[in-house]
Amino acid sequence: MDSIKEFNDYRAAMNDKILAADNKVIKRIFNLDSNAYADGAVATKHKEMIGLACSMVLRCDDCVKYHLGKCKEEGMSTEEVFEVFAIANLIGGTIVIPHLRRAVDYWEALEKEENV
Amino acid sequence: MDSIKEFNDYRAAMNDKILAADNKVIKRIFNLDSNAYADGAVATKHKEMIGLACSMVLRCDDCVKYHLGKCKEEGMSTEEVFEVFAIANLIGGTIVIPHLRRAVDYWEALEKEENV
Amino acid sequence: MDSIKEFNDYRAAMNDKILAADNKVIKRIFNLDSNAYADGAVATKHKEMIGLACSMVLRCDDCVKYHLGKCKEEGMSTEEVFEVFAIANLIGGTIVIPHLRRAVDYWEALEKEENV
Amino acid sequence: MDSIKEFNDYRAAMNDKILAADNKVIKRIFNLDSNAYADGAVATKHKEMIGLACSMVLRCDDCVKYHLGKCKEEGMSTEEVFEVFAIANLIGGTIVIPHLRRAVDYWEALEKEENV
Amino acid sequence: MDSIKEFNDYRAAMNDKILAADNKVIKRIFNLDSNAYADGAVATKHKEMIGLACSMVLRCDDCVKYHLGKCKEEGMSTEEVFEVFAIANLIGGTIVIPHLRRAVDYWEALEKEENV
Amino acid sequence: MDSIKEFNDYRAAMNDKILAADNKVIKRIFNLDSNAYADGAVATKHKEMIGLACSMVLRCDDCVKYHLGKCKEEGMSTEEVFEVFAIANLIGGTIVIPHLRRAVDYWEALEKEENV
Repeated sequence: MDSIKEFNDYRAAMNDKILAADNKVIKRIFNLDSNAYADGAVATKHKEMIGLACSMVLRCDDCVKYHLGKCKEEGMSTEEVFEVFAIANLIGGTIVIPHLRRAVDYWEALEKEENV
Repeated sequence: MDSIKEFNDYRAAMNDKILAADNKVIKRIFNLDSNAYADGAVATKHKEMIGLACSMVLRCDDCVKYHLGKCKEEGMSTEEVFEVFAIANLIGGTIVIPHLRRAVDYWEALEKEENV
Repeated sequence: MDSIKEFNDYRAAMNDKILAADNKVIKRIFNLDSNAYADGAVATKHKEMIGLACSMVLRCDDCVKYHLGKCKEEGMSTEEVFEVFAIANLIGGTIVIPHLRRAVDYWEALEKEENV
Repeated sequence: MDSIKEFNDYRAAMNDKILAADNKVIKRIFNLDSNAYADGAVATKHKEMIGLACSMVLRCDDCVKYHLGKCKEEGMSTEEVFEVFAIANLIGGTIVIPHLRRAVDYWEALEKEENV
Repeated sequence: MDSIKEFNDYRAAMNDKILAADNKVIKRIFNLDSNAYADGAVATKHKEMIGLACSMVLRCDDCVKYHLGKCKEEGMSTEEVFEVFAIANLIGGTIVIPHLRRAVDYWEALEKEENV
Repeated sequence: MDSIKEFNDYRAAMNDKILAADNKVIKRIFNLDSNAYADGAVATKHKEMIGLACSMVLRCDDCVKYHLGKCKEEGMSTEEVFEVFAIANLIGGTIVIPHLRRAVDYWEALEKEENV
């Protein structure tokens, strides 16, 4: 799907520019991301659920998209994803709903891409 | 106005998809919305002022648009709306100003639509 | 009630110190507060409802206490206050509940003080 | 431990007062909490991890305590809890650290209580 | 660059409309902005660094753009700007990264404009 | 002053416990803190101003205290500190004022300690 490709391409291009600036603190923050979500006492799949829910209550559309992509890679079902959405919307309140709309839109795009 | 129609159409289409997913918690959160803003000890008009101000300090453009539409339905004047904006900007600080700009833009569109 | 007096005394003492520092920007922000909540196109009572709800969704206990004191001065009933609480909790989500607990505690103190 | 008992007692006492006020919207929000964390496509244990992480990035100490209590009931290990803390601190930044300190303090109290 | 002009034009046009509404509180908030960033005990350049970092941790893209424009006017180097970014991303966490991407994009546009 | 000692002691004791848990991601986040505020293209003094302002707009009392201690070490004057406070209160709005009160209280304690 175009919206997925556009998101991933911009993300990759800007990450390259950010890392090229060679700021040590920023580079280390970027590196930590891989460590934090790696399989450990908590499985990557459940860590991605956490990442998705936190992104939603903090209302960051790009972060939601990123974690939805990871949730798809981890083989999460639509039912599982909606249960995560439900908790995020309950904790974060109705202010989260516009982000839920865009998240459902993006999840649908991920589902379609998979079935092409 | 196109921006109003576009906002309402996307909102309605995505709400349909969200409710079709049949997650009980999410459906109940959606249902609560009608109850919370119904006339009671506090009139709907004043509840919508509250909804508008909270959306603004929480900096959710879509929520601001939604409540501006409701404020228009409740017959609020531009002067009343700006007094609500003023409180939201004082409480929330200058970080709210970009959202104020878009809110004033949308309110103007609502005013124009009414006068067509 | 002691909790009310303690809150008001600390607030007054620190405001004096802040204003004594004579920073022009801070002094003007303090002055704006009286203007924003004055009777206008929107009545002070409804402006205080807005101030209360915004304080709650932004989860600032001291701001909630301050506005509850003002709501009491404006003659708001417990039923009205709870309808404002309800909207704030719906918009802000369950993360607001601990602040609701402390707000209900303080409102009860204000009610008792009035009946002494 | 006293800090656990004090937290739970205040929480229970205030919840009783809130529900006694008989506001329909607030009562329903409270009811939704049990539904959202019930076993479903996602297990309660993983939902509690989500609740814990969201509470931490939203920086609500009481919510963190509540979910730590639930995590303990779900049999979570200290290692699992710290992996959830790590994600929350990475997503939410160093602003979360003071809440992490209090969370670790409370988790230690829960561990001690269990071993009495 | 077009993105810079588009941002500045919309900002200026909406500010005119906002001020034309003649709400005293809002007008005063706008006026305070010039005072707060004026040279004083702290130099404007360092105040703009503060404005930039606060905009980033509060995740307001338009505010980030505005302060990046001011940082450029103050003659800040790319290295200085990235050190400010680094602090903002450490304090605010990975949730700030999507805003960092757009900020780096805009800073690059400002650099290009300067070299035309 | 006792409030300063109490703050620093709790902070140190809990940091020890957190690091003892030996979670790699959390340990690295802690390490990044020293790097981010080190002298570089931007001087430590100005980085601490940034840290103070960000802590204030994000409304974290403990973070404000920590950075006020660092600002004192960097030799900042009361006038400089209040100019940073002013920007934070303008950007963050009146919701920041309760945190300003506690910050002024703590700064006063730091000033007194220095003069003992």
